Amino acid sequence: MKTFIAILLTLVAAAANAAIHTETIEYKQGDTALEGVLVYDDAVTTPRPGVLVVHQWLGLTDYEKHRAEMLAQLGYVAFCADIYGKGVRPANTKEAGVEATKYKTDRALLRARVKAGLDVLEKNKLVDTRRVAAIGYCFGGTTVIELARSGAGVAGVVSFHGGLDSPTPADGKNIKCKILACHGADDPHVPARDLAAFETEMHDAKVDWRLIKYGGAVHAFTQPMAGNDNSKGAAYNERADKRSWQDMKQFFAEIFK
Amino acid sequence: MKTFIAILLTLVAAAANAAIHTETIEYKQGDTALEGVLVYDDAVTTPRPGVLVVHQWLGLTDYEKHRAEMLAQLGYVAFCADIYGKGVRPANTKEAGVEATKYKTDRALLRARVKAGLDVLEKNKLVDTRRVAAIGYCFGGTTVIELARSGAGVAGVVSFHGGLDSPTPADGKNIKCKILACHGADDPHVPARDLAAFETEMHDAKVDWRLIKYGGAVHAFTQPMAGNDNSKGAAYNERADKRSWQDMKQFFAEIFK
Repeated sequence: MKTFIAILLTLVAAAANAAIHTETIEYKQGDTALEGVLVYDDAVTTPRPGVLVVHQWLGLTDYEKHRAEMLAQLGYVAFCADIYGKGVRPANTKEAGVEATKYKTDRALLRARVKAGLDVLEKNKLVDTRRVAAIGYCFGGTTVIELARSGAGVAGVVSFHGGLDSPTPADGKNIKCKILACHGADDPHVPARDLAAFETEMHDAKVDWRLIKYGGAVHAFTQPMAGNDNSKGAAYNERADKRSWQDMKQFFAEIFK
Repeated sequence: MKTFIAILLTLVAAAANAAIHTETIEYKQGDTALEGVLVYDDAVTTPRPGVLVVHQWLGLTDYEKHRAEMLAQLGYVAFCADIYGKGVRPANTKEAGVEATKYKTDRALLRARVKAGLDVLEKNKLVDTRRVAAIGYCFGGTTVIELARSGAGVAGVVSFHGGLDSPTPADGKNIKCKILACHGADDPHVPARDLAAFETEMHDAKVDWRLIKYGGAVHAFTQPMAGNDNSKGAAYNERADKRSWQDMKQFFAEIFK
């Protein structure tokens, strides 16, 4: 009987996995080769909302692919963008810092890179281009807000523990989409002055925005690999992770109406 | 056909209204007579979550009763507490200011008054006492957080544009319940120093809390009678009203599991 149940569970798991289609897609921004990952539930054949997923400073990893799978299970077409370039996958935080800084100090390049990913998503026939959003983690959170600042015609963006600073706050006026910023109340990587500047930017530009502060959460609160020691400034927080995912779903329910 | 549809709609509306039971309840705190309003859907007979509703500075009005009806329609037993006393219903903002100040400067009395209302709710046989929350608007927001600071055994409290200040921040350590503070990002009635002090209080006491800032919203953003002129510092904001109600529902879904 136990063997039978084990086989049955394996079959059920296989069936569940089989529905999720995962595909590596090479694309370009200028002359730079990029390599993203498209994920969707292949049981659905009609156009549906698309969600761009932008990686943290370590580049595109299994973490983003897992989030894309979670989005696919919600019925969305998800595409994990590659900002750094094909094969550029930092091996440690030192290398990650070098890569992330390249783009944080060249916002025009960052915008071009994320836009290239958005184009791939929007060209997919399964995507309803009137219902597209972008989400991002840490560096990716900064990136999706930068995408909004570029005037992109997405319905909304969600930043999870992203840096909220901008070298050109006046660009807030370009924002056409809705913004949800999910922020760890104890995040030492987002200084109070950045938070205040972000709020001023959103206010001055009359953006449709909201910000959620999760008590007890520091940087990287959605990432299990960040460990659980808040004193390090970055740590996983299951409570804030689950709540922010719910908050994202509620945001999507509103913008994808 | 049109007449038939009109009659049908009237009947449907009547049936929907008939299910909502509204009852004035007199009770006491010390020697002071108080008069609250109990609201629930009388179609339900088994215990369900209870929600205490605490009024704004104008005292218990039709506004709170309407919110209680909305909660009843969600399947909760709602009780509108009376903090000021039977018949004490300020006729204007000047009188409201006098009443509210009495309690804001005597937190022990405020706690006793809200506790008396909570007792009425919890004694009702339709209420599942393991699943009780309190929500409040403006003055009532301050009140429900004060209820939490008193160590009340509720599952959670929700403040809508409430004052977040505390004369005794150390009381944060008494808080046993979860806290959701819904805050207008442009609310001039909640100074930045109060917001910062609130966050410090929650942090220091390791409270399970979250705060949502709604862009473009000022004080009283859930109250249609506040008008729509943000420059007055208090104004209705339909977007923030609807979102904060959704956020409250999501909070309840979590704490009433």
